Amino acid sequence: MMYMGLDVGGTTFKAGLVTPEGRIVHKDAMPTGIERPYQAIIADMAALCRKVAADAGVAMADVAAIGVGVPGLFDNRTGRIPFCTNLGWHDVPFVEEMKKHLHTPVFGDNDATVAGLAESIAGVSAGVRSSVLLTLGTGVGGGIIIDGKPYSGAHGVGSEIGHMMVAMGGELCTCGNAGCFERYASATAIIREAKKAVAAHPQSAILTACGGDAQKINAKIVIDAAKAGDETALRVFDGYVQGLAVGIVNIINMIDPEMIVLGGGVSAAGTFLLEAVREKVKPMVFFKTMPYARIELAMLGNDAGIIGAAMLGK
Amino acid sequence: MMYMGLDVGGTTFKAGLVTPEGRIVHKDAMPTGIERPYQAIIADMAALCRKVAADAGVAMADVAAIGVGVPGLFDNRTGRIPFCTNLGWHDVPFVEEMKKHLHTPVFGDNDATVAGLAESIAGVSAGVRSSVLLTLGTGVGGGIIIDGKPYSGAHGVGSEIGHMMVAMGGELCTCGNAGCFERYASATAIIREAKKAVAAHPQSAILTACGGDAQKINAKIVIDAAKAGDETALRVFDGYVQGLAVGIVNIINMIDPEMIVLGGGVSAAGTFLLEAVREKVKPMVFFKTMPYARIELAMLGNDAGIIGAAMLGK
Repeated sequence: MMYMGLDVGGTTFKAGLVTPEGRIVHKDAMPTGIERPYQAIIADMAALCRKVAADAGVAMADVAAIGVGVPGLFDNRTGRIPFCTNLGWHDVPFVEEMKKHLHTPVFGDNDATVAGLAESIAGVSAGVRSSVLLTLGTGVGGGIIIDGKPYSGAHGVGSEIGHMMVAMGGELCTCGNAGCFERYASATAIIREAKKAVAAHPQSAILTACGGDAQKINAKIVIDAAKAGDETALRVFDGYVQGLAVGIVNIINMIDPEMIVLGGGVSAAGTFLLEAVREKVKPMVFFKTMPYARIELAMLGNDAGIIGAAMLGK
Repeated sequence: MMYMGLDVGGTTFKAGLVTPEGRIVHKDAMPTGIERPYQAIIADMAALCRKVAADAGVAMADVAAIGVGVPGLFDNRTGRIPFCTNLGWHDVPFVEEMKKHLHTPVFGDNDATVAGLAESIAGVSAGVRSSVLLTLGTGVGGGIIIDGKPYSGAHGVGSEIGHMMVAMGGELCTCGNAGCFERYASATAIIREAKKAVAAHPQSAILTACGGDAQKINAKIVIDAAKAGDETALRVFDGYVQGLAVGIVNIINMIDPEMIVLGGGVSAAGTFLLEAVREKVKPMVFFKTMPYARIELAMLGNDAGIIGAAMLGK
């Protein structure tokens, strides 16, 4: 048996045929075209699933389930998507719509949650029973795995770790609150702080790297400058790691998973980030002489979305 | 079959014989005497268990298990207590020591965790599969119940919700970090802020109620003054509720339990507190139109420790 995973984004969606071990056999992508009604988009998703299976020489009858990871909520009891902000979807009857095109069972979950599941089956947290994945991108997503299963809480509104408030009265968040974790641990936070920093320190290598135009600053430029020893970039990076470490310590003190996995664009900084985070976390955990979660880098990159979605049906 | 629960504090410990439904049949207490070696204290605990059973006319052979709730950690795999700060215990072989006196199986867990378990069996969260209890006292303890079972994480160091940082760079905490939740949501926080407030507003009813001596301020005095409409007390109370609500929203956004239960001394403020908390939480939850955790007051009061400890063996 094989599994189909759909990774849905605001620009493109991807489908992949995945083995029970979490290996992608074949994958393909299509533009999402969010200006269209959801019926048309879902019809394309079903068509892409058929195409991927056909191109891999697998009959749809041999696909045990289709899983979908969405940048929003998915309610498996009703088969509906209550919210998917990037797509402008509200209360979309996803499973019902898919069933008009395909007879394969359909499951879904949040994209960070399925990425966490993927890592726990075929990635860095393989064999680990409980883990929390953080996707460090434009925002911060959270994927909680407990007892080997995705955990989204009693009402499906949990694991929104990016919206844990870590700084009461701090930076305003798009969610309407202040001081959310993602205001400090996202790529957006690095860019915001770097812009402030180069205004005060225009000689920074950050500004050189973007041709003197602070509007071109991105997280990679800042981290590369920090790696190269630029003092301004190092201060920005240190502040970022501090915020990230506070959130990680909170996860340890509350959920105490076996492993915390760092994924998303910022995690491309690799061991430079990992070692700095581990060093900041250590003195802050509550029980200082007890074992606590290993902190590791995600392994599956962009494939995590397809793999984790596919594994929802396993 | 009956169950024995031991509720261990720094001043006294209590033992109670509990039915499988979580009803206390008989209970008794002894001074802890923390100046003594742990062997003497544990011998007394075993003796009190025998006495409570005998006084209730139940043979120890009809007690299925002894459960113990400690203000610290309990490792059920090793039977040891790695930390119990109030008692000055480090790595105490609790089960081994109890077995010198009694042949009943022994289990243990953190005191806030067992209180959460008690409420989920015989209290306000009875029948609720996932809940988080907050004990609002000198500090803030957390008891997490998932799938009807106590949840302490992969290394047993989880559910330390009082040490979730909600205010980076904020009030210093006894744990060495800054901005921990318990610095804002404990009785201690109310007292600290009330002392500051009466220094600026000596006409407050808070100061009248403690005979002009700010050192005598306690949480009840402040809350009673707030209930009576004293403006200074209301401002302190409002700030307290704000901090408490931030932590509760974080629990909802991350763990999304079915219910959040408020226990501990401050929860004696009753519906005055409950309604204020519900009102502050509502606009801050991430998914504003989705159902989220009910917030309720704990029901079992001081008996929760005995009941929950006893139910560990069920």
